[in-house]
Amino acid sequence: MSEPRKEVTIYDIAEKLNISATTVSRGLQDHPKINDKTKKKILAVAAEMGYRSNPFASSLRTKRGNIIGVIVPRLNSYFMSDVIAGIEKVINESNYNLFISQSLESMKKEISNARAMFNNRVDGLLVSLAYNTDNLDHFEPFITKNIPVIFFDRVQEHLQFPNIFIDNYKAAYQLTSHLIEQSCKRILHIGGSQLRNVYIERYNGYKRALEDHNLPFDDELLIISDLTTQGGQDAGSTILNMEIKPDAVFAANDISAVGCMQFLMDAGMRVPEDIAFAGFNNDPMSSVVRPQLTTIDYKGFEMGEVAAKLLLGHLTDNADLKQTHSLILRSEMIVRDSSKRKG
Amino acid sequence: MSEPRKEVTIYDIAEKLNISATTVSRGLQDHPKINDKTKKKILAVAAEMGYRSNPFASSLRTKRGNIIGVIVPRLNSYFMSDVIAGIEKVINESNYNLFISQSLESMKKEISNARAMFNNRVDGLLVSLAYNTDNLDHFEPFITKNIPVIFFDRVQEHLQFPNIFIDNYKAAYQLTSHLIEQSCKRILHIGGSQLRNVYIERYNGYKRALEDHNLPFDDELLIISDLTTQGGQDAGSTILNMEIKPDAVFAANDISAVGCMQFLMDAGMRVPEDIAFAGFNNDPMSSVVRPQLTTIDYKGFEMGEVAAKLLLGHLTDNADLKQTHSLILRSEMIVRDSSKRKG
Repeated sequence: MSEPRKEVTIYDIAEKLNISATTVSRGLQDHPKINDKTKKKILAVAAEMGYRSNPFASSLRTKRGNIIGVIVPRLNSYFMSDVIAGIEKVINESNYNLFISQSLESMKKEISNARAMFNNRVDGLLVSLAYNTDNLDHFEPFITKNIPVIFFDRVQEHLQFPNIFIDNYKAAYQLTSHLIEQSCKRILHIGGSQLRNVYIERYNGYKRALEDHNLPFDDELLIISDLTTQGGQDAGSTILNMEIKPDAVFAANDISAVGCMQFLMDAGMRVPEDIAFAGFNNDPMSSVVRPQLTTIDYKGFEMGEVAAKLLLGHLTDNADLKQTHSLILRSEMIVRDSSKRKG
Repeated sequence: MSEPRKEVTIYDIAEKLNISATTVSRGLQDHPKINDKTKKKILAVAAEMGYRSNPFASSLRTKRGNIIGVIVPRLNSYFMSDVIAGIEKVINESNYNLFISQSLESMKKEISNARAMFNNRVDGLLVSLAYNTDNLDHFEPFITKNIPVIFFDRVQEHLQFPNIFIDNYKAAYQLTSHLIEQSCKRILHIGGSQLRNVYIERYNGYKRALEDHNLPFDDELLIISDLTTQGGQDAGSTILNMEIKPDAVFAANDISAVGCMQFLMDAGMRVPEDIAFAGFNNDPMSSVVRPQLTTIDYKGFEMGEVAAKLLLGHLTDNADLKQTHSLILRSEMIVRDSSKRKG
């Protein structure tokens, strides 16, 4: 068990520069007592010699690796890149670096990501859950080590971890009520995985709005989808084959709404006259498509900022996460031409 | 310099389970000699006690942290999420985890990311360069340690690192020639940073196609942009104010092409009759917009796959990266209604 390549230490750097190891160590940590010229020299020699700070040794001293970990389902939506931009904005002003990993909607991979983050001694973790995650056991080791974990958007209730999300129920209720006010009476819902809070609540908000306006709910009016463009087109094909067609579609995201809407328009239906449309997220695509799509502005950037600030707060004052309440962010309905059947 | 919280070791786990430390160590590494029941017990107790594998100690043994690092400018484009999906597909079949970080188009942040990746002992690195990166010194420590670094898409020539990219020059030449064949004679180019290979080459391909068809190039016909939707709209506003308007626009990405095209259509211009359009990337937005946008299919997924396979190959056989040639991937022109002025 011998080491094939000798690790460069601060003593090697000190010897080369003919200064003390303490000075090298301080210089590498950007200590105010070391002047800039010396710091530069130390950093240059360290880089040249291939020095790597030893995360184990440094964790003895500061317990910090200066890494914030982020685990998200996928990076392929504007919403998620917006959230990450918000996180970066906050983290950028600190001394931390952000390491991001994707669960690819798989709980198994989420567990592997969590373990890798844990083993690499992240200082804190921000997580949005995978499609099929049904428990949070893989985050328990972080609790044991007092490493803060905060869930955002796709969350699951847990006493130990705070959650940050928008009121999906209320937003969906508002959108559906808007469609009803536009004289729509047969509103179809394209929904996502009923394991995930965000999609359950959008569905529940939709259903409750129908009830409150005395509109019957019909099983045929719920299509569970993967919410891709293709998923939207498939829903469009199902609608075309319906004997009694819906007069509105509320989709759980903009991508599938646009896929469905363009499919039906290509088949000759008029939007919003024959069928009105509403989506969710305010994806840039919703304002590129014609007619422009009514949607919910999700404020991903703000969600990222809030989550990162909360996490940094805990790292700074080492407060107990159990004492932190969950946060519900505001969202906003944006009415556009795809649903304007009156005035 | 005392440790505030005692680190759990394999000896603590061994004591608790009344088995040998070797068995614990093997169990944690999924060694075939340990049966599944024992492995499960070991993992359960390790998780319960908050055990973290010691990356330093384990690097003595295997020199591996099982992390592949990725540094990209931003995660907010379909192209980049496509590349990352391709990387994930390959990495997922290995024992590695992917840690992704963003340079936010800043060389300073890219240096900080590279240092964090290095300090966390990544096994290999995949990089697409920031907007203003003008040298690769911050990747030298990886060479010293024989850690493979591969650049993709946004690359800079360097003897030590292989590059993977598409032939941007050829693709831009092809697009511009197509516009000329559609009887366009005054083609405006919306280009990106002239520090980055991808944008320089698209510009050069465009210019060369004009020359080869004996069309004059006019300085007024080049607009350097940040290539956002807003950037495209600004270009549209500039075009509206031109005394002699262009009869075609070739933009260096789809987002800015769509922004510019919709701006001009809203102002009453007809596409492609008054002004033809072509973009770059085959972003989903290019097929949502009407008329659909002529573009170059960039094959981000394939680029990610190729880069990851090349990197894994080096990790497996420890080959010398200097011996690896750069790879140029094929791209494909997709002609759609935005540029069809003939038949």
